[in-house]
Amino acid sequence: MSSGFPFAAPFKEIKGSPIRELFKYLSTPGMISFAGGYPAPELFDIPGLQASISTQASTLQESMSYGATEGLPVLREILATLCTQRGIQAGKDDILVTSGSQQAYELLVRALIAPGDTALVERPAYPAAIQGLRLAGANIVTVGVEEDGTNLEELARALQQHQPKFFYCVPTFANPSGITLSLEKRKKLLALLATTDCLLIEDDPYGQLRFSGEPLPTLAELARSTPAQDQVIYLSSLSKTVAPGLRIGWMVAHPEILRRCVLAKQVDDMCSAPFMQAVAAHYLNSGRYAQHLPYIINTYRQRAQCMLNAFSADFDGQLKLVRPEGGMFIWGYLPPDINATRLLPLAIDEKVMFVPGSGFYADKPDENAFRLSFAMSNEAQITEGVTRFRKALDRY
Amino acid sequence: MSSGFPFAAPFKEIKGSPIRELFKYLSTPGMISFAGGYPAPELFDIPGLQASISTQASTLQESMSYGATEGLPVLREILATLCTQRGIQAGKDDILVTSGSQQAYELLVRALIAPGDTALVERPAYPAAIQGLRLAGANIVTVGVEEDGTNLEELARALQQHQPKFFYCVPTFANPSGITLSLEKRKKLLALLATTDCLLIEDDPYGQLRFSGEPLPTLAELARSTPAQDQVIYLSSLSKTVAPGLRIGWMVAHPEILRRCVLAKQVDDMCSAPFMQAVAAHYLNSGRYAQHLPYIINTYRQRAQCMLNAFSADFDGQLKLVRPEGGMFIWGYLPPDINATRLLPLAIDEKVMFVPGSGFYADKPDENAFRLSFAMSNEAQITEGVTRFRKALDRY
Repeated sequence: MSSGFPFAAPFKEIKGSPIRELFKYLSTPGMISFAGGYPAPELFDIPGLQASISTQASTLQESMSYGATEGLPVLREILATLCTQRGIQAGKDDILVTSGSQQAYELLVRALIAPGDTALVERPAYPAAIQGLRLAGANIVTVGVEEDGTNLEELARALQQHQPKFFYCVPTFANPSGITLSLEKRKKLLALLATTDCLLIEDDPYGQLRFSGEPLPTLAELARSTPAQDQVIYLSSLSKTVAPGLRIGWMVAHPEILRRCVLAKQVDDMCSAPFMQAVAAHYLNSGRYAQHLPYIINTYRQRAQCMLNAFSADFDGQLKLVRPEGGMFIWGYLPPDINATRLLPLAIDEKVMFVPGSGFYADKPDENAFRLSFAMSNEAQITEGVTRFRKALDRY
Repeated sequence: MSSGFPFAAPFKEIKGSPIRELFKYLSTPGMISFAGGYPAPELFDIPGLQASISTQASTLQESMSYGATEGLPVLREILATLCTQRGIQAGKDDILVTSGSQQAYELLVRALIAPGDTALVERPAYPAAIQGLRLAGANIVTVGVEEDGTNLEELARALQQHQPKFFYCVPTFANPSGITLSLEKRKKLLALLATTDCLLIEDDPYGQLRFSGEPLPTLAELARSTPAQDQVIYLSSLSKTVAPGLRIGWMVAHPEILRRCVLAKQVDDMCSAPFMQAVAAHYLNSGRYAQHLPYIINTYRQRAQCMLNAFSADFDGQLKLVRPEGGMFIWGYLPPDINATRLLPLAIDEKVMFVPGSGFYADKPDENAFRLSFAMSNEAQITEGVTRFRKALDRY
C-alpha cells in the first residue's frame, strides 16, 4: 500500500464525541456525574426483567435464530399498542423494530441523505444526530430553540432557503435542552411543514417521562388527517423507560419509508437480537412496565427538583437554568464571562462532571451553555455535586 | 407535500432480496428447504446457552445499561483468544464487536465508500454484500471464481482498471459457492494486493465449519509481516458456530480503520446488546463452545455427504455440483438448457426449495446456477428433497 487508507470524505478527518472523551473521568473515585445522558440503572425493574428473561430462556431455539428484519410480530403488536395509547394510530405492520432509536435515525439518514443534501437539526441538538449527518456527508443547517421550542420563523426560512430532506426534532423534553415544543407551535410547525417536501423526524425517547405539567399530543398524533400526515416519522425507544441494554427502539412511518428502512436494516444488522425482542415483548405484556414506570418518573421528578433547588439556593440567579417538565436534562447558561469548556477541568478537579454545551451545536456553539443530567445521581449526590460546581465556578 | 418522498438515489427504485421473497413458501406444510442460508436451530447448544443466560441474568444492572461501543471487554478478550487460535495476532483492543459480521461489513462500507466509488465482489457473491454496496451507491465490479477460488488474473485486471476501495471475499467455504481459496492463491492474492491501495475484507463466518480436507491459514494470518498486512480486514461471527440470534460478530483491523468503524457504530446502534455480549462471552469461556462445535461440524459433514450422494445417485452427472470441504452450501449448475429461476416454481410445487443463482451476481447472472444448503435438513429430508428436485427437473 503506497498511500493512506482510502476512507470516504467524512471519515478522513475524524474527531470523537466530546462527551465520550469525558468517560475516562467517570471512574475517578468519588466523582459525581451530571454528564452522562443515561438512565439510572438502579431504577431498572431488574426483577421484572429477570422474570421475562427466565421465561423466554425456556424457548430459546427460535430466539437464537435469525428473526424477521421488521421485528418479532409479538413485539410489534405491543409497540403498536403503546403507540395507540400515545394517540398514534399504528398497527403491527406500521412498526419497524430497531436496535435502539439511534438505528432508526441512522436508517433514515441512509435512505434519505446523499452527500451534500441538507438536513435541519435544532440548536442545540442531540450530538449523535449531528454526527450521523456529518458521517453521511450532509449539509447541516440549524434552527434555534426558544423556551416553547423550535423558532418557527427560523424554521420557515431554513425550509425555504435549503429545501432540506428532513428536520430532526425532539419535541418533548429535548436532549440537551429539556425544552418542550408548545401545543400551539406543534400545530404551526405541521402546517408549515405541509407546504414543503421536508420530512419531520419526531424523536420521542423521553415523552413518557413527564413529571410535571400537562401531557401534549405528539406531532405524529397531531399530523393525523392533516396534509402533513405522511411527512411525520415517529421514533421511540425503550432505552429510557425500560433499559437501554435491550437496544430496542422503533419507527412508525409511511409504508414507502418503512420499506426502505427495512432494506437498509437488512444490510446493517439483519435483525435486532430476537432474544432481546422477546424479553422486551414479554416485559411490556406482563403489566410490569405500566406498574414500574411511575417509580422512574417520581424519582426523576425528585432529582430534578432537588437539582433545581440546590442551584437556586447556591447561585442566587447567576445561572440561567431551563426548568424541564420531564426527561432527564437541565440546560443552563453560565454568566457571559464564563466559558463552560474551560470550567469543566476545574469541575472535574472538584469531582463533579457536566457537559459543556458546545458539543450540542452543529455550527457556532454557545460557549456559556452546559447540560446537566439529574437522572444518574441520588439527592445527596446532587446536593453535594452542586456545591462542588459552585466551588469550581468560584475558582474560575 | 407536493412530490414523492425525497429518497437518496440508491433508495429511489428498490427491489427486495430474491431469497427473502421465497420466505413465504417456507411455511407451506411439508416443504423441504435447501434455500435458507441459516444454521440448523436443532444443533444450537440450547442447554449451554440457557446456562449462560441464567448466570448472566443474575447481574443484570450492567448488561441492561449502555455498553462501550467497542464491545464488552470480557467478550473482546475471548474473541481475541479465538483469533489467536486461528493464527491471527489480535489483542482485546484490536477487536470491534459488531451486531453480526453483517454490521462489521456495513460499517466498513460506510467508512470507505462514497457514491460512485468502486468495490470488488466475487461472481457469485453473498447477496447482502452486494446489496450493501448498491444502497451505498457504489460501483460494483465482479471478479470470477474458479474451483480453487478467486480468478487472480481477473482480479489483477480489476485492481488496475478500477482502483477499488476494497475487495470483499469469503475465502473459506464461500456463500454461495462453497469454494475455498487455495493456499497458493492466498499467497498470490496478498502479493497482488500489496502492489495496490485496495483493502481486502476477509469475511470468515464459515471457516470453523471444516468437515474435510486440511485447514488453511486465513488471509489475515498469511498477511502478517508482509507488505499487505495493514490491508487485510478480518470479519467473523458467532452466527454459524453458536447461534445467529446472539447477533455477535467482530472485526479485526488496523487501528485507523477500527477507530472509524467505532464512530460509525456509535451513530448506528451505540453498542451491540450488552446482555447478548455477556451471554456470548460466558458461553465461549465456559468451554462448551469447543465441546459442542464438533457436533455441528459432524452433522454438517453427514448432511453434505448425504446430499452429494443423493444427487449423484439421482442425476447421473446431469448436474455439476461443487463439493465443499466445509460450511453450509453446495453450489450447482443445471444443464445448459435449464434456467434455475424457471425451475424454482416447479420445485416449490413439488415441495422442495433452493435458491436460483441469479441473486448472487452483482452483474450478469449465470442462469443455470443454483445454491443448496444442506444445513437445515436432516438426512431423511435431504434424500426426499433430492427426489423432489429430480421430479421438478423432469417436469421442466
